[in-house]
Amino acid sequence: MLENVLAAIRPLDARTMADARAHHARLTKPPGSLGALEELGVRLAGLAGTCPPPLPSPAAVAVFAGDHGVHAQRVTPWPQEVTAQMVGNFLAGGAVVNAFARQVGATVTVVDVGVAASLAPASGLVVAKVRAGTRDLAVEPALTRDETLAAVEVGIGVAKSLVDGGARVLLTGDMGIANTTPAAALVAAFTGLDAAVVTGRGTGVDDVTLTRKVSVVRDALARHRPDPSDPVGVLAAVGGLEHAALAGFMLGGAAARVPVILDGLIAGAAALAAAALAPHAVHAWVAGHRSAEPGAGATLAHLGLRPLVDLDLRLGEGTGALLALPIVASAVRVLHEVATFDAAGVTDR
Amino acid sequence: MLENVLAAIRPLDARTMADARAHHARLTKPPGSLGALEELGVRLAGLAGTCPPPLPSPAAVAVFAGDHGVHAQRVTPWPQEVTAQMVGNFLAGGAVVNAFARQVGATVTVVDVGVAASLAPASGLVVAKVRAGTRDLAVEPALTRDETLAAVEVGIGVAKSLVDGGARVLLTGDMGIANTTPAAALVAAFTGLDAAVVTGRGTGVDDVTLTRKVSVVRDALARHRPDPSDPVGVLAAVGGLEHAALAGFMLGGAAARVPVILDGLIAGAAALAAAALAPHAVHAWVAGHRSAEPGAGATLAHLGLRPLVDLDLRLGEGTGALLALPIVASAVRVLHEVATFDAAGVTDR
Repeated sequence: MLENVLAAIRPLDARTMADARAHHARLTKPPGSLGALEELGVRLAGLAGTCPPPLPSPAAVAVFAGDHGVHAQRVTPWPQEVTAQMVGNFLAGGAVVNAFARQVGATVTVVDVGVAASLAPASGLVVAKVRAGTRDLAVEPALTRDETLAAVEVGIGVAKSLVDGGARVLLTGDMGIANTTPAAALVAAFTGLDAAVVTGRGTGVDDVTLTRKVSVVRDALARHRPDPSDPVGVLAAVGGLEHAALAGFMLGGAAARVPVILDGLIAGAAALAAAALAPHAVHAWVAGHRSAEPGAGATLAHLGLRPLVDLDLRLGEGTGALLALPIVASAVRVLHEVATFDAAGVTDR
Repeated sequence: MLENVLAAIRPLDARTMADARAHHARLTKPPGSLGALEELGVRLAGLAGTCPPPLPSPAAVAVFAGDHGVHAQRVTPWPQEVTAQMVGNFLAGGAVVNAFARQVGATVTVVDVGVAASLAPASGLVVAKVRAGTRDLAVEPALTRDETLAAVEVGIGVAKSLVDGGARVLLTGDMGIANTTPAAALVAAFTGLDAAVVTGRGTGVDDVTLTRKVSVVRDALARHRPDPSDPVGVLAAVGGLEHAALAGFMLGGAAARVPVILDGLIAGAAALAAAALAPHAVHAWVAGHRSAEPGAGATLAHLGLRPLVDLDLRLGEGTGALLALPIVASAVRVLHEVATFDAAGVTDR
């Protein structure tokens, strides 16, 4: 399944991008005056292979949930049970991701790819648990290679299912108490940056916990020596089930040539792994926002993606991606609806 | 009319803001994890005097259009007739502001407060022409004091009319070939910054034109010596009819305790004048975006407003404000819809 998806991921269509740039130049606005939105529209045209590209609607957020053995290292003040409780909150519609999704008309699908607790079946919940949380990366590899691949394929399957169901844009979401620790380890492994540079306060840990968290990340990298040329191996050693699933989700979107709006640090860490598997996949991704987590900025710089929103959010769940959705839609809508100088009878300079 | 509006502008309600902060602390998310959106929600609660504050819907953009005598100084490559042509484009629904407004469900009202050409009556057009363009600020004051006050009152009236019609958020828009030149002069006058620091390329002028534009701004300041403690006098000397009307529009929103989302440089320049008239009005304003124009960043810093979007747009029309609208709505929606830890059965740390 992964091999097929990787083989389907192709470069952007250069001719369509040239058409989109030429169309932009004819529209009733000064050239370049929409800043970053112009190149975004051009890129999405190149992804779709049509100009204008499809409007990004319907929109679907997938929130991948998992637990983490490294929670035992006291890297967060939140109890592990909160992962399952928040899944319940998502399914009841009471979390921030639900409020933001209602604002922009997106659906929310929750995917249990690795929650420690058993979850009752529910509408909106995809049960695809690979295992009940990862092992503790501070003492052993978090996952086996097979478990990692299984989680990646869960993500691919969710992307395919949502696109088959009509989604024209995918948004990444995550839930997993302690998941900024494996995310920081992934970012360090793929970017080569020091643990202290990419490890942040997550949900808001104090100085003592932050110091411990940095040590956990640094020691894990020294112990496992993850090799960035083996992305699945890196995910297995220091990743999480939701990170692996998100990587698959992003690859699945890229293979379907549907844009994927990335949320913050967790998505970014997963994107580093996915980009290492399929460099052209990056062109299908839109950085929804830059999280306040230091690893998020480093990740976007490494991927060469400019965030659309930069408001110090650090919640996850898909919230930053949802804030960016109307901006993406606006960039596309320009190519559909704005009049040309000729058609509008406006004098071009 | 202006005196009544200024008298109606009051500080934010501190008790409601405290309630909103306390409510935020009970919601199922780590404290502070929504970054700048938390304080935005708190501020809008303080503006409305209720927590949660009303959702910002319906939304109404007002695009104030005017022409500029300083066009004669060749500060832009665009012919003056483009102002009227673009008004036609707005009314036909073919401009970027229309596409962005459809994306987020906002209405667009165009206000002729000073277009040089005579415009035929049309649906969606408010004809309130104070004069057919300003005088050339390079040789004489752009407006008389009475003309300036009349334009401010046009803006107040448009705000009142839109709020009376049900709008729960106002967005600023502008159209006026050459209007970044008076905007730069206003920014320099109110911030004390040098003309070269706050004057930019507008729609994209070349180096020679930029040099000329900076000289025009610098010479106008030397000639008129506008006094920032007399904001109406500053607007009259170096402003534009749309700048004056926008100042009134922002004051009208503040007086009605309805949030006003500011677009880019032209709105910022008008906001400096409006804030000088009524310092508490700033609390009713949300900086939609930071334009690529250098004067825009200086203005936001002076007003103490953080932009919600920062994507190098420099189009005007209200486009940057419209991109920010769903973010503002999301910030408010959190206070309406997100479950508390108690209600959701989620363990607080």
